[in-house]
Amino acid sequence: MIISIVGGTGNLGKGLAVRLALAGYKVVVGSRMVEKAEEKAKEYSKLCGCKIEGLSNDKAIDICDVAILTIPWKSALDFVKNYRDSLSKKIVISPIVPMVKEGEFVYKPLNGSMAESIAKILGNKVVSAFQNIPAKRFSNLNETPEFDVIVCGDNEEAKAVVMEIVNSIERLRALDGGPLSNSRIVESLTPFLINLASRNGLKELGVKFV
Amino acid sequence: MIISIVGGTGNLGKGLAVRLALAGYKVVVGSRMVEKAEEKAKEYSKLCGCKIEGLSNDKAIDICDVAILTIPWKSALDFVKNYRDSLSKKIVISPIVPMVKEGEFVYKPLNGSMAESIAKILGNKVVSAFQNIPAKRFSNLNETPEFDVIVCGDNEEAKAVVMEIVNSIERLRALDGGPLSNSRIVESLTPFLINLASRNGLKELGVKFV
Repeated sequence: MIISIVGGTGNLGKGLAVRLALAGYKVVVGSRMVEKAEEKAKEYSKLCGCKIEGLSNDKAIDICDVAILTIPWKSALDFVKNYRDSLSKKIVISPIVPMVKEGEFVYKPLNGSMAESIAKILGNKVVSAFQNIPAKRFSNLNETPEFDVIVCGDNEEAKAVVMEIVNSIERLRALDGGPLSNSRIVESLTPFLINLASRNGLKELGVKFV
Repeated sequence: MIISIVGGTGNLGKGLAVRLALAGYKVVVGSRMVEKAEEKAKEYSKLCGCKIEGLSNDKAIDICDVAILTIPWKSALDFVKNYRDSLSKKIVISPIVPMVKEGEFVYKPLNGSMAESIAKILGNKVVSAFQNIPAKRFSNLNETPEFDVIVCGDNEEAKAVVMEIVNSIERLRALDGGPLSNSRIVESLTPFLINLASRNGLKELGVKFV
């Protein structure tokens, strides 16, 4: 199975690329600029001691079975519209959280949740996951985080595939979060976690259900 | 400091009464029926090996410095209106979550959150906490849960008192959740946790930020 991390040059993309490659998946890093994708793929390959490929976003999407959209929320819907034809054939994972800083971080949902907005464009193989992962810590392989990942989606087969992908990563546990409409509460947890950490003088926080 | 657990005859009330008494607080259990309060106080006293008093809700409220309202959400606002004069002088903790079962559990906020609705009646010494505690497990002293408790409130002094109370309980950690308006997201987590547990075949869940 090929997993493409689309726009995968930031912290979450790095963590996912390296940890999924370590789990045995064939991983592709996509970027608007192929040079950047190649450069990052080289860096990530070195980190995990395995072969991660760097491609343009177009090619990364075409080649993959599962696309993880690690792209900024502001451009997410335009991006998804641009790649509607190719993305709608794939299982698409949205870790995207629309939020703005107004003193603290505030969740700014679009039509219920970002995941649902994307599903309106791409159809029902959209699954949400990874929104609450503290990206910087996750990108650091020396960190051994133990986080829960809530997976929401309306297509049970696609959701099962995504839960398997999550569980393949060491110390992550996938939990079935129910229908895609539940993404709203999962997405809203992210600004809440950021505010909680800064208000209480804690490092970047993830969540664990105990 | 006297802490009254108002309507404290259920699982959350039991867990709080016993664990706060063990932490050294003078604890009173309140109930509509004084006989029930006395019976439960006796039971709880035996569990912790210390003296917990049982009183009518009226007296439990009058005597206390801090009142924890472990009452059903449906009658909560009527209750608070009835005891407005005495409760408005106290620090009041709301662990109350308005929710209904519609297939899964669904959060039914009133005016933003239950905590804010109560504060509209009682003023700004209302603090929300303990909403996400799995009550049955918490009432079992053989359980050694390690949970985070998010504390929200608009009166910083009252919030500091409540955080100290939370932290006095072994293996609970108080986190400053910001203003009372943030209670909405904390309250909404409770039905989400219940659904998550049942959907994934897990025991009653609490939350820990890691």
